[in-house]
Amino acid sequence: MFKKEFKITPWNVEGEVDYEKLIKEFGVSKLEDNILERIKKHTKELHLFLRRKIFFAHRDLDWLLDEYEKGNKFFLYTGRAPSGDIHIGHLLPWIFCKWLQDKFDVDMWFQFPDEEKFLFKKNLSFEDTQKYLYENMLDVIALGFDEKKTHFLIDTKHANLMYKEACKVAKKITFSTVKASFGFTDSTNIGSIFYTSMQAVPAFLPSILKGKNIPCLIPLGIDQDTHFRVSRDVMPKLGFYKPAIMHNVFLPPLTGVSGKMSASDKISSIYTTDTPKQVETKIKKYAFSGGQPTIEEHRKKGGNPDVDVSYQYLRMFFEPDDKKLQKIHDDYKSGKLLTGELKEILIKKINDFLKEHQRKRELAKKRIDKFVFKN
Amino acid sequence: MFKKEFKITPWNVEGEVDYEKLIKEFGVSKLEDNILERIKKHTKELHLFLRRKIFFAHRDLDWLLDEYEKGNKFFLYTGRAPSGDIHIGHLLPWIFCKWLQDKFDVDMWFQFPDEEKFLFKKNLSFEDTQKYLYENMLDVIALGFDEKKTHFLIDTKHANLMYKEACKVAKKITFSTVKASFGFTDSTNIGSIFYTSMQAVPAFLPSILKGKNIPCLIPLGIDQDTHFRVSRDVMPKLGFYKPAIMHNVFLPPLTGVSGKMSASDKISSIYTTDTPKQVETKIKKYAFSGGQPTIEEHRKKGGNPDVDVSYQYLRMFFEPDDKKLQKIHDDYKSGKLLTGELKEILIKKINDFLKEHQRKRELAKKRIDKFVFKN
Repeated sequence: MFKKEFKITPWNVEGEVDYEKLIKEFGVSKLEDNILERIKKHTKELHLFLRRKIFFAHRDLDWLLDEYEKGNKFFLYTGRAPSGDIHIGHLLPWIFCKWLQDKFDVDMWFQFPDEEKFLFKKNLSFEDTQKYLYENMLDVIALGFDEKKTHFLIDTKHANLMYKEACKVAKKITFSTVKASFGFTDSTNIGSIFYTSMQAVPAFLPSILKGKNIPCLIPLGIDQDTHFRVSRDVMPKLGFYKPAIMHNVFLPPLTGVSGKMSASDKISSIYTTDTPKQVETKIKKYAFSGGQPTIEEHRKKGGNPDVDVSYQYLRMFFEPDDKKLQKIHDDYKSGKLLTGELKEILIKKINDFLKEHQRKRELAKKRIDKFVFKN
Repeated sequence: MFKKEFKITPWNVEGEVDYEKLIKEFGVSKLEDNILERIKKHTKELHLFLRRKIFFAHRDLDWLLDEYEKGNKFFLYTGRAPSGDIHIGHLLPWIFCKWLQDKFDVDMWFQFPDEEKFLFKKNLSFEDTQKYLYENMLDVIALGFDEKKTHFLIDTKHANLMYKEACKVAKKITFSTVKASFGFTDSTNIGSIFYTSMQAVPAFLPSILKGKNIPCLIPLGIDQDTHFRVSRDVMPKLGFYKPAIMHNVFLPPLTGVSGKMSASDKISSIYTTDTPKQVETKIKKYAFSGGQPTIEEHRKKGGNPDVDVSYQYLRMFFEPDDKKLQKIHDDYKSGKLLTGELKEILIKKINDFLKEHQRKRELAKKRIDKFVFKN
């Protein structure tokens, strides 16, 4: 499979991502089996995101585990810039955080930088981001985080905690650096230029609030790594640990295994609020197939699960049972399983998941206050 | 008197300032007698800062008076970036604000951008700015502002009110603009680049809080004009009036009539906390004299009040009585009044002022809470 040109910034992913190349370019480490074994020692089992290398790279995870084994517990930090509805691709790092929270019994700081997309998108207003903020919080809560150990930070609401700390970071980052790292130009607005400082803050704010240095682990989509490539070096200068990071690959859009699912491309994404009928229609109509043009040809030549989006969704998210997944893989490859049948399996899986998610999402409406950090 | 090269930014003033040239370069309007007459209609009398053109330029003051005469009251906004002790030069716009507050019965918003100098000065820590913040607030309160109508905004403390609004400003200002206006380079830190957005906020925050558009008048040293040259154009785009501005000249340093008094140059400044003895010593030792080398020569040729710092301090600040000032001027020019005698007049004036100021400054320690805006 040849790789086309691809481009990644925290605000845009284009083309078919070459993750091996990213590992080199970003200077991150591959998530090797020996480190998975170390995790398994503590968690007893490995989440499918780990077994199947959906989380595929990291920074300083060895160090984080060293600290944990010395009794120095970490906290989790991830986030969501409100700018649209949540699709299933967004859920990957959050579901993983929920698993880590349960397994390691740790606090979770979830940042909602409600100014970010306002600053970066020409036509997005603060009224828009506030609406999405509310909707997006429901999706996070619905995933089952422990309300006693999960703290939402909303940049504009918690700015009296965060802005001062962001200034400490900002003082140590020049325009040169953000120009090179984010591709900014002289036409970039000065809010966008400053913004990365705010994204750095939750990685050490809990240490300030607790009055002691606490290790931080950030699970995130690899496109967000740039922010921490810039700010990680600053943190020791401020007296804090560099946060450890775990990077996940992107859930591909329905339309094919390149780029990442995008909240603004309505036909290429499954939203957490889609109805069963919408899910069915989207999968049947748009999910890129690795099957053959005719049933006869498919029975003879078999399908290609590597490029089949339905299979990939099962592998990356919806079929946790390795044996069942292997059987689907083999049956599809041999031609025994037809594309239509494969799609039916996925549709049922997604709709079962969404039914439960949507139920919890409704209940979340009364629980937001329990999650927003009180300062 | 020939003018040397001079350079003005909000963080540095060098050389002998040519105010006529500044008016043209900055695109501000000269404060002409007709507008002073309009002010006098409302205030009955003119403050010495107006009579003697210590406030010498403005932006949109005609418009502000139009609005006032239509019943649309304005509010005042000025500020202080905590970074050192207060000298008498700092007091000019604040004393003028106090006079305006009394005469027009208006609210006053006083910003303490406690991150500004932290961002711009390499070796200044937040611990430093917090110490100066406290000290500087005492000086402002000591000037007699009405506690019911005066509201302190402290950037890091009030960031949950201000940061979101600053982002709205920031979205409309590019790096190009701040590069050209403030002389920033690629090596400037990203906090400094963002900062001007925070200084814009108090010019319209009261309008947001009151839910209606309120005109704003900003008395300030002309070096601060750059911030508003950048942000005034943004405000109508956000639905607010452009603030009107009144600009004061700098109180010269003791050592001569060029530059401005600097808080970091200990021998060229009179601080609000100086003892009577310190004031006497500084004036006698450092105050640049327009007198002649010997008494005999002085009696014969007379002194030059235009370059005499002691005379200038009396004119710009400490001798409100126009007739008395004229007599001092004439006597000095004729040689009747000696430099030593002129200095004695000034020393007594300053020490009388500081005695009262320091008494009120002590009382202010218990009143800070009444001034800090409750949000």
